[in-house]
Amino acid sequence: MRVAVQGEPGCFSHAAALGHFGVLTLVPCRDFVSLFEAVLDGRADRGCVPVENALAGAVTENLDLLVRSPVTAVGEAYVRVEMCLAVRPGTRLEDVTAVGSHPVAFRQCRRFFDAHPEVEEVVAYDTAGSIRDLMMDPDVAWNGAIGPALAADLYGAETLERGLEDHPRNFTRFLVVARASEARRSARSPKASLAFTLPHRPGALHDALGVFADAGLDLTRLESRPIPGRPWEYRFFADVRGASGEGWERTLHALHARSDDVRVIGRYPEAPAP
Amino acid sequence: MRVAVQGEPGCFSHAAALGHFGVLTLVPCRDFVSLFEAVLDGRADRGCVPVENALAGAVTENLDLLVRSPVTAVGEAYVRVEMCLAVRPGTRLEDVTAVGSHPVAFRQCRRFFDAHPEVEEVVAYDTAGSIRDLMMDPDVAWNGAIGPALAADLYGAETLERGLEDHPRNFTRFLVVARASEARRSARSPKASLAFTLPHRPGALHDALGVFADAGLDLTRLESRPIPGRPWEYRFFADVRGASGEGWERTLHALHARSDDVRVIGRYPEAPAP
Repeated sequence: MRVAVQGEPGCFSHAAALGHFGVLTLVPCRDFVSLFEAVLDGRADRGCVPVENALAGAVTENLDLLVRSPVTAVGEAYVRVEMCLAVRPGTRLEDVTAVGSHPVAFRQCRRFFDAHPEVEEVVAYDTAGSIRDLMMDPDVAWNGAIGPALAADLYGAETLERGLEDHPRNFTRFLVVARASEARRSARSPKASLAFTLPHRPGALHDALGVFADAGLDLTRLESRPIPGRPWEYRFFADVRGASGEGWERTLHALHARSDDVRVIGRYPEAPAP
Repeated sequence: MRVAVQGEPGCFSHAAALGHFGVLTLVPCRDFVSLFEAVLDGRADRGCVPVENALAGAVTENLDLLVRSPVTAVGEAYVRVEMCLAVRPGTRLEDVTAVGSHPVAFRQCRRFFDAHPEVEEVVAYDTAGSIRDLMMDPDVAWNGAIGPALAADLYGAETLERGLEDHPRNFTRFLVVARASEARRSARSPKASLAFTLPHRPGALHDALGVFADAGLDLTRLESRPIPGRPWEYRFFADVRGASGEGWERTLHALHARSDDVRVIGRYPEAPAP
């Protein structure tokens, strides 16, 4: 299975894909648009797309890409965003003078830097890449790097400390996507992701959510996104549990009666949320 | 009236504040946290806080700050995000070789750069600041700058072209905030912004939105944000119309019965949406 992810080998998306597939061939992509392209043009069989982080919220660019692209979600995956301090083997904590990582990782590890004010933060474009550069580039500007344990393992770095992040309950949720033509509806697909627009009238959203409630579907998430060119109108992204059988077909039918644009992003087996 | 905004004089927030207040003393702040601090410590009487853009969606950092900070929304304002090409007076379009602006502005003006492939894009940290630097820094790396017409007017630049943005229906909505202790509930405050958490059970959101629907309130916007430390639970941000009188009090009462955390961000006169 060739799986496209945004990022370098060892990144959190890679870890999520490994957790989901076990064995895979990684197709690293420089940005999310390239990830979708890799799936659509057949360079990858699947894409592992982050859609939501438990601290930062929705990955809005990917919600928009999911609606625009002829892909279908065939699975979901979670990864714990655990930040590790990686060094060249033999380096001690007191020897670390400069740490490379992505700015978001620095923001998530304030306690570590408050406890080590002498350690310089050097901005890199990627967490896993900062660990790779530490191990493969002799001229790199840091002698420690913060990123995923998977990257430390891959590049042969030593992990000095784990759990550097301030909020240990930090997870990212991914959708696993395939080309839409590969959609296979299994009877055992109790979770669904879909997007729909609504007319701008009082009670429209309440009415639409009533469709799910009446069918006994559990709405696990609702996001709204603007519709370009239609200011103050929104596209809603919903994840629901229990999307199987005849009840699901009835739900879609009722939703179509209330929205002129319903897009089922995919139905897939539910992964246990961490 | 001293009004805090994030950005340089002439920025879109400044334009929004001028549209709302007419006359004001600007308190420029380097980031949103500083803007809230300026209001809370009394350096500013009001803050003009972008909460939503018609193309990009919610300004999530500000939603989180609105919930955390003891401020109250006392008004709303809209501004059209119109990008102008500013030059030093006398410069002709065919003389422009390099244009400075914020990366977001470059992304919003693809048609212009496609039509002028010879023009270099030089990244600046701010749109208004790129126009100020054009006029005040003789060593600046650009001889054109893309930003608000207000900045061109303020710094004495000449506006060569207007409406450079690909999507002309681009607007940003702001909340005008004051210290919470200044809250004055006027009977003529038909719009309200509020945030609430919900227990994780099927139908909880549908039930909560029913409170608004039953009261005849028009939900104009709903956003969800993660709650740090409680993965896959959400805080919902709602804007509603018709939030006045006894009906509003009943609505809040019914919402409190369904949520253990309701925060009224403010009630304010509605501004006409562009």
